[in-house]
Amino acid sequence: MTEQLSDPKLVAVLGANGRMGAEAVKAVEAAPDMKLVAALGRGDSLDKITAAGARYVVDLTVPESTEANVRFAVEHGIHAVVGTTGWDADRLAGLESLLAGHPETGVLIAPNFALGSVLASAFAAKASRYFESVEIIELHHPDKVDAPSGTAVRTAQLIAAERNAAEMPPGPDATTSELAGARGCEVDGIRVHSVRLRGLVAHQEVLLGGSGEQLTLRHDSFDRASFMPGVLLGVRNVAAHPGLTVGLDGYLDLGF
Amino acid sequence: MTEQLSDPKLVAVLGANGRMGAEAVKAVEAAPDMKLVAALGRGDSLDKITAAGARYVVDLTVPESTEANVRFAVEHGIHAVVGTTGWDADRLAGLESLLAGHPETGVLIAPNFALGSVLASAFAAKASRYFESVEIIELHHPDKVDAPSGTAVRTAQLIAAERNAAEMPPGPDATTSELAGARGCEVDGIRVHSVRLRGLVAHQEVLLGGSGEQLTLRHDSFDRASFMPGVLLGVRNVAAHPGLTVGLDGYLDLGF
Amino acid sequence: MTEQLSDPKLVAVLGANGRMGAEAVKAVEAAPDMKLVAALGRGDSLDKITAAGARYVVDLTVPESTEANVRFAVEHGIHAVVGTTGWDADRLAGLESLLAGHPETGVLIAPNFALGSVLASAFAAKASRYFESVEIIELHHPDKVDAPSGTAVRTAQLIAAERNAAEMPPGPDATTSELAGARGCEVDGIRVHSVRLRGLVAHQEVLLGGSGEQLTLRHDSFDRASFMPGVLLGVRNVAAHPGLTVGLDGYLDLGF
Amino acid sequence: MTEQLSDPKLVAVLGANGRMGAEAVKAVEAAPDMKLVAALGRGDSLDKITAAGARYVVDLTVPESTEANVRFAVEHGIHAVVGTTGWDADRLAGLESLLAGHPETGVLIAPNFALGSVLASAFAAKASRYFESVEIIELHHPDKVDAPSGTAVRTAQLIAAERNAAEMPPGPDATTSELAGARGCEVDGIRVHSVRLRGLVAHQEVLLGGSGEQLTLRHDSFDRASFMPGVLLGVRNVAAHPGLTVGLDGYLDLGF
Repeated sequence: MTEQLSDPKLVAVLGANGRMGAEAVKAVEAAPDMKLVAALGRGDSLDKITAAGARYVVDLTVPESTEANVRFAVEHGIHAVVGTTGWDADRLAGLESLLAGHPETGVLIAPNFALGSVLASAFAAKASRYFESVEIIELHHPDKVDAPSGTAVRTAQLIAAERNAAEMPPGPDATTSELAGARGCEVDGIRVHSVRLRGLVAHQEVLLGGSGEQLTLRHDSFDRASFMPGVLLGVRNVAAHPGLTVGLDGYLDLGF
Repeated sequence: MTEQLSDPKLVAVLGANGRMGAEAVKAVEAAPDMKLVAALGRGDSLDKITAAGARYVVDLTVPESTEANVRFAVEHGIHAVVGTTGWDADRLAGLESLLAGHPETGVLIAPNFALGSVLASAFAAKASRYFESVEIIELHHPDKVDAPSGTAVRTAQLIAAERNAAEMPPGPDATTSELAGARGCEVDGIRVHSVRLRGLVAHQEVLLGGSGEQLTLRHDSFDRASFMPGVLLGVRNVAAHPGLTVGLDGYLDLGF
Repeated sequence: MTEQLSDPKLVAVLGANGRMGAEAVKAVEAAPDMKLVAALGRGDSLDKITAAGARYVVDLTVPESTEANVRFAVEHGIHAVVGTTGWDADRLAGLESLLAGHPETGVLIAPNFALGSVLASAFAAKASRYFESVEIIELHHPDKVDAPSGTAVRTAQLIAAERNAAEMPPGPDATTSELAGARGCEVDGIRVHSVRLRGLVAHQEVLLGGSGEQLTLRHDSFDRASFMPGVLLGVRNVAAHPGLTVGLDGYLDLGF
Repeated sequence: MTEQLSDPKLVAVLGANGRMGAEAVKAVEAAPDMKLVAALGRGDSLDKITAAGARYVVDLTVPESTEANVRFAVEHGIHAVVGTTGWDADRLAGLESLLAGHPETGVLIAPNFALGSVLASAFAAKASRYFESVEIIELHHPDKVDAPSGTAVRTAQLIAAERNAAEMPPGPDATTSELAGARGCEVDGIRVHSVRLRGLVAHQEVLLGGSGEQLTLRHDSFDRASFMPGVLLGVRNVAAHPGLTVGLDGYLDLGF
């Protein structure tokens, strides 16, 4: 799966002192086809990136600084793989304008680098047009403040778009007597249920049901390490995808 | 597991034309230690029970007739195994008074004859005092009109009682931003989530979570046949349990 | 999802007295865009198909007769959807020769019509190149005589082909002390485990594991009815796929 | 759930530099009803235990030293909670002789301190007499050298003993054509399947099946922290259980 290159990819990690950034530093160092040339923490000058000769940056910083970081990279022809949140429509539009002037530079902005999670969402959307019913259960540790999770919301949106495109009716539901909340919340017409349980990390199930059969797509994130294969896959492929790509699924060979 | 008796148990099935009753007729006929001596449908006289020499009745009728059926059985010293709903506190009290005058006759009234479901609920309650978090997910076909299911409500009540007895605090939950319904409904302080999916029959999961671990107790009912082993177990044991027993768990060797 | 046609598709079901065929008869009768014009059982003359004006045949017969049935259909320009087993390489080659002379006629031969199962296998193969480890667990009723199931073998073959194409190494396994059989059997290098349990019908899980994450793809067949949406999808699409198609996935919009 | 005592329990942890021991040091320090008075590593003199005034020792050392450690504790009237392996029949017999002379001292030797795992095994054994079929699937990280796991072997033995006591026949299995290993290994007549997958830690499912229903008992260990509630429960209860107890289930209120 890895590119065989005589010269390793020169990578700078931004946000290297954060929890995700620290994992990325370790992952880049361990990758045989990469070389970590800079690890920047809060307050470090972006000039360290160019001084070190980096050809790739991995941005795992904070919403306040990610835009400036990525624009700096693009302006210097450095490809960027970005896991930081905070990229609203305005920021994305500005970045696309900038990239128009740097046609050989690629940027990947991915809200989720867990390969299994990205695949599960894509599969769920694709399958949902073949089943009468679909619901989502997401399960997380009890210190999480929002319900449902952002991943569950996005998965529901993907599914709803696919079902609308196929002109499918809503899933059947004869419920007439409900204790408030029993049937979960609704995101674009898709039911989502949020479980909070000590001991868990981040888990999601999409349940699809038809006459006499069920298809279940489950993803479990046990550990922050689960994001690193996706980050490395991003670094390995970003140069071959000039311009802006949002979502890691754009790099996966899903054919859809 | 079966008693080895030279003489088979003589059984009458009431409600024999209903879906559950028809299954019971088949199950009793197939049981090597039982003999079906009467199968009564709507409108049949209860005298057929005594005329046939039945020593056991299995009542799978309707709430309107179950009380008269069971009282008739007890008055004739015939043991009764009852799956019909509608036994409120008044009816139960009246039955206990009647049984006081027939000290050798046993009656089992069970809202649920699926052994696996009864065991799962009992285990869930027992385990719940050892885990910080517990939530219930029940999953049914989409033609069901009530949410959550009666079994889920009873399971939550059993769990809540056990946790209150152990003076456990509520499960942790940091949710501050919730899309209405995401966190399910609450039954005695226990969160319950109801999934409705074409293709399913009746399923329930109790999830228990503690530091670094999870215990999951899941029961699947695929078919009405799943109730029959419990009905037969009831017939085999009711004579040894004179008086009134509510709930099949009273006959299971659970030790608690 | 259904085509809106003024004229319904005229369908003949072959093997209409078998268990699958009887389900197909019901399914075709219930489909608003189809009309059942003939239902043939053992011994019926194939002329009934043409006499009834069928434009589609659904063959759910036995290995001994399926080849003659399908060839008869093709020779009369009738599209065929085939669920019968027994199509070895020789028969398929012969059929392709015949179809060469009838370029507008389509034949779908599908070993498995459960949409969820076909999707799960396709997704598993696609995902398997992104995970270090993959194993299969299939679970069936205890009256099944072969282990592993044919579906599990095919799924393992699809996965192995995908991983070989991506030049992936075998999954990691440090086992040095094994009680014989504990680690399952191997199909093309993929571990497969077969569970046999009373109460089950036909179920399969593909487990994919990488650093800190797991992706699980599970399919449950609860009932023979689960095959009918796939059969109808076949009838609706076979005319648009002239020539021979093996596997229902050829008709699904999977993009891969 | 904790005892309310004015005086905290004085605890010494042996093997404090090992991975489990280090977790135990943290857990004892965090427990409001305990006080860590000594933490011994390799080479430390056992006299540190008595010098520190410990009333309880937690032994998480190695098979070579655990026997001497526990005997030292008992000889000084100190209760011991032991997670170290290597206690064969000879050692246990010797320890019981020693305890006969110290009738107020308690020792708990537990091969598994994960409460959920201990509960799941106990429930599985208890339930297994009510189901025709039972099989075990255990799933671990791929660096594990033995298959099946010790916990799976013990669970199978408990189940087999329960089913033998109930004079149950073997589970049904019509397999006549098996690819070697597909049906797993057999432990006392119970089928066990071992999955090895990157990303997993330690997981086990017991599947029980009967007519039309399935009961699944699953335990997931995500983290070494999952053992600490069991260790603390041991310390809190060992004084009330003088003599030798093997297995944490002896302290759980399971009633069986």
